Amino acid sequence: MRRVYLDHIAGTPLHPEVREAMLPYLGEYFGNPQSLHSFGQESAQGIEEAREKVALLINAEPEEIYFTSSGTESNNFAIKGIAAAHRKKGAHLVLSAVEHQSVLHSAKNLEKSGFHVTEVPVDRHGLVDPEAVINAITGETALVSVLWANGEVGTVEPVESIAKVCREKEVPFHTDAVDAAGNIPVDVKKTGVDSLSLSGNQFYGPSGSAALYLKKGTRCLPLIDGGIQESGKRAGSENLAGIVGLGKAAEVAQRELPFRAGKIKLLRDSLIERLTQASDRVILTGHPEKRLPHHASFCIEFVEGEAMLLNLDMKGIAAASGSACTSRALKASHVLLAMGIDHATAQGSLVFGLVESNTSDDIDYLIEVFPEIIERLRQMSPLYPGLDKS
Amino acid sequence: MRRVYLDHIAGTPLHPEVREAMLPYLGEYFGNPQSLHSFGQESAQGIEEAREKVALLINAEPEEIYFTSSGTESNNFAIKGIAAAHRKKGAHLVLSAVEHQSVLHSAKNLEKSGFHVTEVPVDRHGLVDPEAVINAITGETALVSVLWANGEVGTVEPVESIAKVCREKEVPFHTDAVDAAGNIPVDVKKTGVDSLSLSGNQFYGPSGSAALYLKKGTRCLPLIDGGIQESGKRAGSENLAGIVGLGKAAEVAQRELPFRAGKIKLLRDSLIERLTQASDRVILTGHPEKRLPHHASFCIEFVEGEAMLLNLDMKGIAAASGSACTSRALKASHVLLAMGIDHATAQGSLVFGLVESNTSDDIDYLIEVFPEIIERLRQMSPLYPGLDKS
Repeated sequence: MRRVYLDHIAGTPLHPEVREAMLPYLGEYFGNPQSLHSFGQESAQGIEEAREKVALLINAEPEEIYFTSSGTESNNFAIKGIAAAHRKKGAHLVLSAVEHQSVLHSAKNLEKSGFHVTEVPVDRHGLVDPEAVINAITGETALVSVLWANGEVGTVEPVESIAKVCREKEVPFHTDAVDAAGNIPVDVKKTGVDSLSLSGNQFYGPSGSAALYLKKGTRCLPLIDGGIQESGKRAGSENLAGIVGLGKAAEVAQRELPFRAGKIKLLRDSLIERLTQASDRVILTGHPEKRLPHHASFCIEFVEGEAMLLNLDMKGIAAASGSACTSRALKASHVLLAMGIDHATAQGSLVFGLVESNTSDDIDYLIEVFPEIIERLRQMSPLYPGLDKS
Repeated sequence: MRRVYLDHIAGTPLHPEVREAMLPYLGEYFGNPQSLHSFGQESAQGIEEAREKVALLINAEPEEIYFTSSGTESNNFAIKGIAAAHRKKGAHLVLSAVEHQSVLHSAKNLEKSGFHVTEVPVDRHGLVDPEAVINAITGETALVSVLWANGEVGTVEPVESIAKVCREKEVPFHTDAVDAAGNIPVDVKKTGVDSLSLSGNQFYGPSGSAALYLKKGTRCLPLIDGGIQESGKRAGSENLAGIVGLGKAAEVAQRELPFRAGKIKLLRDSLIERLTQASDRVILTGHPEKRLPHHASFCIEFVEGEAMLLNLDMKGIAAASGSACTSRALKASHVLLAMGIDHATAQGSLVFGLVESNTSDDIDYLIEVFPEIIERLRQMSPLYPGLDKS
């Protein structure tokens, strides 16, 4: 059967150059990077080269990069660590309503120890208004967190304006750039963020390898205590091959970013145009222009997301209905609800994320099988008003 | 130059079968294990098979295994998570004085939120007395933690007796088995522990892939909040290849454990015998019999550990002076001090850990170069009383 992978937001395939870069670290090089002997130093060199590459991708300094095991860990590290380090100033957090679960649940955890959280709403496209962030900040605010781009609806947030606001108010600003870094330009100096998460599995690097950028001078307590790794900020023996792979993925991304975004955007635009024409009541979610170039997300009325995924899968097509981190939770997405989409419609969420290897044939195939699947599923829905187009 | 790797405690080389098992997950299989489509399900199958293999190695149930990124993370997860979950009972922890930094620093972190810690002393061989654990437990004790085996001095602790004590007192018992699992038999049911850390890089699996065992019913809050991975107990997209590698390493370890321990122990015994004869004032540290089969640790009087490591490295020999997690901290080991070794002697710590590929030629080579290195370094020490043997 033909297989078409359109689930970038759950993860990307490994780039062949990344795989090649990792292989020597799954055999020849195995020393502990903290060891003083030559076996260790070979590994340490691999790690430090990776740190430089990741730093280059986001225009940071190598010593501002801390390797972690996932975007989720990076977000936990930043939210809990920066909040704890600034606790004396106050116990107030400002988050957007469309943050990733790892940010929201980290904040929820902090509420148990006395923090309170203000959620900044978004408009119907999922955009955060920097003015709303200004209004939410108080003299007690320890941290603001607004994601760079949303994995569920593709919307790219005005992080530069939000960072400016936070700088003026002297509040640290964290941004979850897991869906953005490696796919669109991310420049920490130009943007002026204090803290930023990125993850290899969103730009053709290995899953399980990610990083947190912390601007020099940003106070942040460790999430994982113990040894001296990562300048004492993140203990634990390093994921050697994974870190080397993340570095190579960053290098490849930097090189291919212009091409990546251009080619993939053309295919994506065609997918959006043809899918909305292929079936009735297919609603584009997220911002029509300010969105990730690989990202096409919809709500399909009168159809339930999981059923669509399973039927697409039977045709060999991989897509998502929301974040992979909640794929089995079967709850309506908090992101869609925050955008004002009603519960019933939100159940019909369908998210396509293109990857580099996709071709126009893949889109043709999707458009070929899609209407029939939707029609069949709708006939089973008690709410479906038939073919009466509105 | 000849290269001899004798630094098991910093990490082991990857077993060829582990590498083979990982390769398909660095290319062919890349789906997010949480995704409902076939790409995701292929990965999920790899993860669940790995979970079964890790469970088998320690005689646990698969659903009691939680994958993490390092032994350090597993220890943080257990110490912070179990303590927090049992906080209502009391805010008291009992630890041995020779725990790994990740346990000690997690406990230190808990002290900031009101916990107090009792450290149970050890004897001159590094052994914990179960009676001392009984005496340290109070009605407020939320958790006891004693490691299974010590990476710095090789001593294997009486965990079964300590677990029994804790069960009688109804206090959860965590054991850091990072240096033990995969090298000596570890059976969670027979021992009766509630929580146990293990790490792939100690038994020929990949670095950056580890696990926490939590006995069914053991309450433990997550360290990393967010998505639904690992039954909601450890969020974050999985280190797919790393987990598969950990599973294969567990399978290989289970198969080869009797051979591993036997062959390596013979070599190790010869190393201890010949090294103590090769130079004067070479003191074996840790227990003479109750020790890890691959482990040979010493204090060399009048020589500083780091200088020894660098000189051995110049001859191509990799060894350690303590935990890799503190290798650059240049402090005397808390383990050696807890065993009553004085500060000056503790500075001369030298730890050899044999790996499967070592041969008697490797030991011959070490014995050949060792006396000259020690003699040269001692001549530089102001405290050295010359060749006057005592």
